[in-house]
Amino acid sequence: MSQIKVGDYLFRRLHELGIRSVFGVPGDYELALLDLVTDNDLAWKGNPNELVASYAADGYARVRGAGAFVTTFGPGELSAYCGMAGHYAEFVPVVHIVGYPAVDAVRNKEIMHHSLGNGKFDMYENMAKHITAATAVINYAPTAAREIDEALTIMMRESRPVYIGISVDIAYEMIDSEGLNVPIPTKLQPNDAALEKKVIGEIRKLIEGSNNPAIIVDGGAVRHDALEETQELVKVTNFPTFTTAMGKGGLDEAIPQFAGVHSGAGTLPAVKQALEAVDTVIWVGNYPSDFNTGEFTTVVNKDATVIDLQRFAVWIGKTQYAVSMKHILHSLVDSLRANPISKASQQVTWDPYPKFSFQANDDLKQDYLWGALSSFFRPGDVIIGETGTSAFGLCDTKLPSGVMMFNQTVYGSIGYATGAIVGVGQAIKESEGKWGRPILVTGEGSMHLTIQALADMLRWDLKPIIFVLNNGGYTVERLIHGKEAFYNEVAILDYSLLGKTFGPAFESKYHGPVKTCGDLSALLQDSSFGNAGCLELVELILPPLDAPSAVIKTGAAIDAFNKAKAEKGPSSVQGA
Amino acid sequence: MSQIKVGDYLFRRLHELGIRSVFGVPGDYELALLDLVTDNDLAWKGNPNELVASYAADGYARVRGAGAFVTTFGPGELSAYCGMAGHYAEFVPVVHIVGYPAVDAVRNKEIMHHSLGNGKFDMYENMAKHITAATAVINYAPTAAREIDEALTIMMRESRPVYIGISVDIAYEMIDSEGLNVPIPTKLQPNDAALEKKVIGEIRKLIEGSNNPAIIVDGGAVRHDALEETQELVKVTNFPTFTTAMGKGGLDEAIPQFAGVHSGAGTLPAVKQALEAVDTVIWVGNYPSDFNTGEFTTVVNKDATVIDLQRFAVWIGKTQYAVSMKHILHSLVDSLRANPISKASQQVTWDPYPKFSFQANDDLKQDYLWGALSSFFRPGDVIIGETGTSAFGLCDTKLPSGVMMFNQTVYGSIGYATGAIVGVGQAIKESEGKWGRPILVTGEGSMHLTIQALADMLRWDLKPIIFVLNNGGYTVERLIHGKEAFYNEVAILDYSLLGKTFGPAFESKYHGPVKTCGDLSALLQDSSFGNAGCLELVELILPPLDAPSAVIKTGAAIDAFNKAKAEKGPSSVQGA
Repeated sequence: MSQIKVGDYLFRRLHELGIRSVFGVPGDYELALLDLVTDNDLAWKGNPNELVASYAADGYARVRGAGAFVTTFGPGELSAYCGMAGHYAEFVPVVHIVGYPAVDAVRNKEIMHHSLGNGKFDMYENMAKHITAATAVINYAPTAAREIDEALTIMMRESRPVYIGISVDIAYEMIDSEGLNVPIPTKLQPNDAALEKKVIGEIRKLIEGSNNPAIIVDGGAVRHDALEETQELVKVTNFPTFTTAMGKGGLDEAIPQFAGVHSGAGTLPAVKQALEAVDTVIWVGNYPSDFNTGEFTTVVNKDATVIDLQRFAVWIGKTQYAVSMKHILHSLVDSLRANPISKASQQVTWDPYPKFSFQANDDLKQDYLWGALSSFFRPGDVIIGETGTSAFGLCDTKLPSGVMMFNQTVYGSIGYATGAIVGVGQAIKESEGKWGRPILVTGEGSMHLTIQALADMLRWDLKPIIFVLNNGGYTVERLIHGKEAFYNEVAILDYSLLGKTFGPAFESKYHGPVKTCGDLSALLQDSSFGNAGCLELVELILPPLDAPSAVIKTGAAIDAFNKAKAEKGPSSVQGA
Repeated sequence: MSQIKVGDYLFRRLHELGIRSVFGVPGDYELALLDLVTDNDLAWKGNPNELVASYAADGYARVRGAGAFVTTFGPGELSAYCGMAGHYAEFVPVVHIVGYPAVDAVRNKEIMHHSLGNGKFDMYENMAKHITAATAVINYAPTAAREIDEALTIMMRESRPVYIGISVDIAYEMIDSEGLNVPIPTKLQPNDAALEKKVIGEIRKLIEGSNNPAIIVDGGAVRHDALEETQELVKVTNFPTFTTAMGKGGLDEAIPQFAGVHSGAGTLPAVKQALEAVDTVIWVGNYPSDFNTGEFTTVVNKDATVIDLQRFAVWIGKTQYAVSMKHILHSLVDSLRANPISKASQQVTWDPYPKFSFQANDDLKQDYLWGALSSFFRPGDVIIGETGTSAFGLCDTKLPSGVMMFNQTVYGSIGYATGAIVGVGQAIKESEGKWGRPILVTGEGSMHLTIQALADMLRWDLKPIIFVLNNGGYTVERLIHGKEAFYNEVAILDYSLLGKTFGPAFESKYHGPVKTCGDLSALLQDSSFGNAGCLELVELILPPLDAPSAVIKTGAAIDAFNKAKAEKGPSSVQGA
């Protein structure tokens, strides 16, 4: 039987899963392992810190289907736990590989650097268990292949992060390579045929009985790889189709059935009216978090029957069926193609975003910004909106076909977007033209958390287009609480120098400061902008308390929610 | 009885412990709490990210005796777990205050932002338990004072970090303020008098019987607040006194008894000879980690009797006595003053650092650098050496009296020093002239992890002096493994622009690039350098594989240790 190094076995598996670049920060417990990265047709994309690495792997995985990063035991891995919890909450399959001290150092309870100094070595893995679908620490070669395969299988099945530690002296141990003959399963098992048939029958019955059905494409449709099936369903049913903050950027918005964004109480009037009238909703990947529902509010008719499709279950009303949404959608489309249900669908006419009247010399405001940005987006763009006014604001854009856009609606870690665009940029380079420009939209306070990621964008020639909303602090927090508060201030940086500081050897362009609506309009109409073939950074100057109108309302709702719940008691809580 | 808000109770306690500045990053779950910071005579020193906040609190605590920082539930706190594990490993008393979702949001299992989306809220606290001495989540006002007091008492007793979560709607609940009448104990309980007497007797006996005693002032002497007592012991015994990598910068090196640094196999010849000859060692705060012992090596005579003094125990040979070092040292000094033991001490003559011969136009090398820097340090300086060649190199300096210097010998997180100097700088400003200049010595790869901390140094006018060893990557890792490896490369930044980028409104000075020994010598002799009254950054250009000779040896030993242990088996492991 042919033999292979433990480290090679792991990296071959990553390659098999479509991974071509590995992110991370080197440390002495994994240096030898890293020697093997390039032996397995993987690129090493080292980052300035581990949090950036975890975010980069996240962005990469959202584009390519899986991601990986390597850090060292202790400080390295712990610095990335925030990123991993985000992978977990948002169903992003990322493997975090951790270089561990030598087997005997652990056995002998040595006080190794990066440990807590007490001879223990299992505490970090125990921490990681809370934010991963599986953990393994490989410290015995004969079981290594099996442990690696089990962890990666769970990662792909659950679409969630896993943690694989490797002792520094195990990576080069030789093991049997036979396991590699059978690939890691990347598709979910088919549903039980009889149960699937029953569920399809139930759904068909509800559709047949409905006078006013609708589809909502929520975050889970994107995160559980069901977009294609969902779009087929829209086509075959012709139902009006809505999205949400988390689903936004997954659904093709150029289709005639697209009927707007469900944002709970913040939903636009025409969209709200349409949702209030529906009697049956196929809710693909419902994820009723606070930020995804306008703080636990809904405008869907409360008497409507909801068919709630999840990764491993479909809920019809209060009844759970243990079937996976992807297969159900596929079969439902087949069933509706074979035996169509003729149904006159509600026609929803709505304005994609509020119309505001602005003059060229008006100060730039967010109610102008998001509409204007819509015209800049084009097929192939991959856009990340940072948590805060960026993500909320981007919900008000209208996207052309062939765009990918996402944000971290549930986990909501500021700093995420600036790190994640690194992975997106790298994935775009590996997409053979399928994807085009990496576009980052972020507030300046958020960007400060992970600003060193700019160095990677430059040295790897990722050519991102970056819009920085420079509005004098944490605006979304000001809107929630502390409008003028000292703690919502952030440092004032010189954004025009960022390119030269973080990559003096590389070309970069600064545009700004953009202070008026006319400035922005002129920039967006300048055909050389967004095509310079290098990093371009646009500094948008905005008032500290400016936000899309919907966000201002939501901010106040969040503060009220935070303050008032204990007083009001559980009975007043609105379920999503 | 007078009433007080829960948040005020907490902040009053922090003030009582000597804390005057609170670090952190705001988030909506703690915004209301932050309104109370300044009401309690504390300054809010918000940071660009949570890792920087945790490091700043660490540096602050090492100077002032305790530190605090505030983050938000989930992303905020997890981003700081690396910092907390460092507090734990290195005995730094820091309280991490975490803003939690509202009580009813938790009770009702809402899918709140920053959660994992599964209705659970206890996972982050459970993670923190592994890296703290105590955790509490305050979600019920009547027990709040007790929970706060218990956590802070443990923090001060153990000299370790604690975690206090506060639900956003509890911070303003009114509670009884009576508890504040009794301060949190900050001194350890006295030892059992009879046991202490016995231990003092044992130690006296060993000293009396010794022909060649010595004192080693290790990291625990610093971290367990026993420096004053130890220096008294040196004075009263006149024994030759050594330090270690972790103890370096605690002991006053201007005393005649100072006999050099114990670095295991890397110890300088004359120092080694002296240690090989001792028969009894009073080892204050022994912390036998790999980096503190030259990779588990020692040059102390193997037959010597070691009196090992720890925070809560004294070991004489193999026998443990449950007494605390601080009180034992105090009593031992008293005993030796009252009944002196006359003992002719070994006179150790040694060169403070190796002598090398350099010409002015020679390329700058580390064997020149550390000796040269010694002349620059002056009383009042607080110096942080980053993990890597900086920390190792600074062991070769000779420090004047009245200097504080430290590094993270055990935990060894790169990026730490650049964040920690923020807290040091702030603590210096609050020291009423006791301390002078904050000095940071770091490699450029390490600085990249937390480079946004520069913004805080500038906007708070901390006036640090920063030496950046720009040597084209992770040098200490190159020396361990992968001398020319791709993964040991880092981004190339323009260090001359850092000041203007991160604080365009503030004055800063760039010196460099310093490429030759003559350049450095001229800079250090320029009386305007180090006194500009603003941030000064010196860029030192060094060869990628250059390091102090001792480090080059240690790097090779670490690689061998990592690789060879499994093969050699446990019997070959050298205990420290």
